[in-house]
Amino acid sequence: MSVVAAKGFVAGGMACGIKESGAPDLAIVATADGQTVAAAGTFTTNLCQAAPVQISRRHLNDGRAAAVVLNSGNANAATGEAGRVHALRMTKLTATGLGIRPNDVLVCSTGLIGIPMPFDSIEQGIPQLTQQLGGTEPHGAAAATAILTTDTVRKEAVASANLDGVSVTIGGMAKGAAMLSPAMATMLCVITTDAAVDQHVLQQALAAAVSDSFDCVDVDGARSTNDTVLILANGLAGNPTIVATIGDAYAHFVAALTEVCCSIAEQMARDAEGATKFARVTVQGARSKHDAKLAARGITKSQLVQCSLYGADPYWGRVISECGASGAYFDPEQVTITYQGIVNCRNGIAAEHDTKRLDELMQNSDIEILVDLGTGGHGTHTMLTTDLAPGYIDENMRTS
Amino acid sequence: MSVVAAKGFVAGGMACGIKESGAPDLAIVATADGQTVAAAGTFTTNLCQAAPVQISRRHLNDGRAAAVVLNSGNANAATGEAGRVHALRMTKLTATGLGIRPNDVLVCSTGLIGIPMPFDSIEQGIPQLTQQLGGTEPHGAAAATAILTTDTVRKEAVASANLDGVSVTIGGMAKGAAMLSPAMATMLCVITTDAAVDQHVLQQALAAAVSDSFDCVDVDGARSTNDTVLILANGLAGNPTIVATIGDAYAHFVAALTEVCCSIAEQMARDAEGATKFARVTVQGARSKHDAKLAARGITKSQLVQCSLYGADPYWGRVISECGASGAYFDPEQVTITYQGIVNCRNGIAAEHDTKRLDELMQNSDIEILVDLGTGGHGTHTMLTTDLAPGYIDENMRTS
Repeated sequence: MSVVAAKGFVAGGMACGIKESGAPDLAIVATADGQTVAAAGTFTTNLCQAAPVQISRRHLNDGRAAAVVLNSGNANAATGEAGRVHALRMTKLTATGLGIRPNDVLVCSTGLIGIPMPFDSIEQGIPQLTQQLGGTEPHGAAAATAILTTDTVRKEAVASANLDGVSVTIGGMAKGAAMLSPAMATMLCVITTDAAVDQHVLQQALAAAVSDSFDCVDVDGARSTNDTVLILANGLAGNPTIVATIGDAYAHFVAALTEVCCSIAEQMARDAEGATKFARVTVQGARSKHDAKLAARGITKSQLVQCSLYGADPYWGRVISECGASGAYFDPEQVTITYQGIVNCRNGIAAEHDTKRLDELMQNSDIEILVDLGTGGHGTHTMLTTDLAPGYIDENMRTS
Repeated sequence: MSVVAAKGFVAGGMACGIKESGAPDLAIVATADGQTVAAAGTFTTNLCQAAPVQISRRHLNDGRAAAVVLNSGNANAATGEAGRVHALRMTKLTATGLGIRPNDVLVCSTGLIGIPMPFDSIEQGIPQLTQQLGGTEPHGAAAATAILTTDTVRKEAVASANLDGVSVTIGGMAKGAAMLSPAMATMLCVITTDAAVDQHVLQQALAAAVSDSFDCVDVDGARSTNDTVLILANGLAGNPTIVATIGDAYAHFVAALTEVCCSIAEQMARDAEGATKFARVTVQGARSKHDAKLAARGITKSQLVQCSLYGADPYWGRVISECGASGAYFDPEQVTITYQGIVNCRNGIAAEHDTKRLDELMQNSDIEILVDLGTGGHGTHTMLTTDLAPGYIDENMRTS
C-alpha cells in the first residue's frame, strides 16, 4: 500500500498499448469521492518542458486537484502543439470517466522524447481505467507498476505522523532510473495524504521535502523534460488544518513527507540503470551548507569517481580533485577522506591504512564516502549516487 | 618535428623508471643556448593544484624561462609539502644539468593523484637526460612520447605565420586522453616559437588561443589538478617584437598559435580513452556567444548524448533536453537539429527525414551535430567531444 495508504484515495493501472511490449503503461490516482483537495507540485527546471508538465502547471494554478493521470512509454516531450492537445485530452478523458472537471486533473508522462503519442491506445484506455480504480493494495501496486520505464522494481513508500494528536498517513509512488540529478530527475512521483494542510503550506512542505531528498540524488547529471512530484492532501484524517509553515504539526508533517521522499529517492538510486553499487557521499567541515553541496555534487557528478566505484577502487585522488573543481573553498592540505569508515587521505595526502581490509570493504554493494574539508565550518551535505557500469551504456546507447 | 620545429629549441625524452612498465616517462624542452626567453602559461582552475603547477606558477612570475621538465606516470598532486620539495628539486636538477638557474625552469607532471613520487628514478634520470637533448625530429618525438599516459598516440602540431614579412614557426607537443573538459583538461602542452613576442603579449595570445581550442573540448567534464599549457618564445626568427595585442602581426601570431592548439585539442579528443566516435557539436542562432557556449557545453557534457553517439543513434531528444537544462535561453519550439547534415528535428519536434540514409551516416566515426536555437541571434560556438564507450569504464575503473 502506498499511493492508496492514506484514507480516501483510489488508484489503478493497466496496459493500454503505448508500450509495444504490452507492459502496463497507464495509471490514475484520484480522490475516492471525486472532490478536489489541496494539491501541490514541483516540476523540472529544464527550459524544455514536456506538454504534460505545461498542462499540470496550469491545472495546479488554483492549488486544488482531484486526480492524476500518468502514462509511461512516451514522454510527450518535444511534441509541440500536438503534444499539448494530447496532454489536455488525457485530462478531459479522465475527467469524463470520473465525473469531475478537466481542470482538476493533473497529467504526467514518461518515456522517450520527441515521439508523437500513440493516442488511439490512450483514447481507449483511460475510459476503461477510470472504471477500475480502487483503494486496496493491488490497486496501488498496479498504478505504481504502470508508471515504470527502465525501472526494474516498483518504488513506493509510506510514513505516518502525529499532528496535534491525530495520526495521519502519507504514501507515495514514483518511477525513475536514469536522468537522475539534483534539481529534479527523470522521475515522476505522486504522493497522497489524509492530512489536512492548507494548499500554500502544502507547496512549501513539498519543496522542503524535495530539496532534502530527490535533489540529493545524482546518477548522471541529466535534468529531464518531464520531472514532476505531485501531492494531494484530502484532510480526511481530521487533524486541525495546518495553515502556516511554523509549529510542531508543520514540522512533523514535513519530517514524515521528507521520510517518504527520501525512501523513494534511495529506491531510485538503488535501481539506477546498469548500476552495481550504491554510494552515499557526505561532505562535512565546509564553510557553509552551500559549499558542502557544491563539493558533494561535484563528487557525485564525476564520471571518474563513478568508474572507480565500479572498480571497487577507493581512489580518493579523484574525490579531492572534484572538490577542488566544485567551486567550494577550502585548503586542500586540510582535507580528510574516509571510505567505508577507513581514512585513506589525511591533510590532503595519502594516509597509511589497512589496504587489505579496505579492499574487502569496497566489495560491498553499499559504499560510504566521507569528506571533511577541514575548514572548521559546520556545512554538511549528503548526496546519493551509483557507479558508472557498462550496463548504463548498454541501456542508453540505442532508443530502439 | 614539433616542439623543436622552431629555431633555437632542443628537447629529449627517456625512461627513468617512474612507470613500472618501463615506458618513457621523463622529458625536457629547453632553449638551445640556455638563455631565458619570453614565457607564458595557463593552468588548471582547480583549487587543488598539483605541486608542479604551484612551482611553475611561481617560476613564471618574471615572464621568462629557459627550460621545461616534465614527467609522466605520477601527477605529484595531493602530495603536500613533500610534493613541492620534489617539484622544486626537479627544477634544480634540470638547472644544474643545463647550467641555468632553477627559477628559469618550469615543471609539469601527469599521472595518478595522491601517490608519493618515486624520486630516486628522477634523481638519476634528469642529469642523464640533460646531456641528451637535441634539436632534431627524433629528439622532439622522444619528448612527446615521454609525456604520454593512457594516450595511444603522440600529439604534435606545427604552424607558421608571416609577421611583418618574417616567417615564424610555432610547434607544440601535448598529452591528454581523459579528464578533458573546458577550463583545462588533464593535459600538458608545451609550445615553442621563434617569434619575437613581448612576454605580457605572449600571455594574452596564449590565453586567447587556449580559449578557442582546449576550452572547446569536453570528454568527461573533469578538470584535473595538473593541467598546464606553456609557451616559450625566443625571438630567433627576427621579426619586429610584437609588443601590443593589436595589429596584423599580433593577429597573425594568435591565428597560428590557435591553429597549433586546435590541432592538438582535436588530437586529444580523437585519442580519448575508450572512445569509438569523435563529434563536433555546433550551436548557432543563440542570443549571444555566452548562450551558445552554455548550450554546446551542456550537450557535450551529457553522458546520455555520449551513450547515443556510441550507439550511433541520432536521438535529438537528448540534445534538446540538454540545451533546455543548460541555462541558455530560447524557445524550444524554434529549435532545429541536424545530424550529419540531415535535419531530424524542426521547430522543436520530430522532422520527417531519410532515416535509412541517416542511420548509414551515423556509422561514421566522425559525427557532426548542428543545433540552431532559432532565436535570431548570432551567437555560435563549437565543442568537440566523443562517445561514452565501455572502454572508458575499463580504463578508469581501477588505478592499479
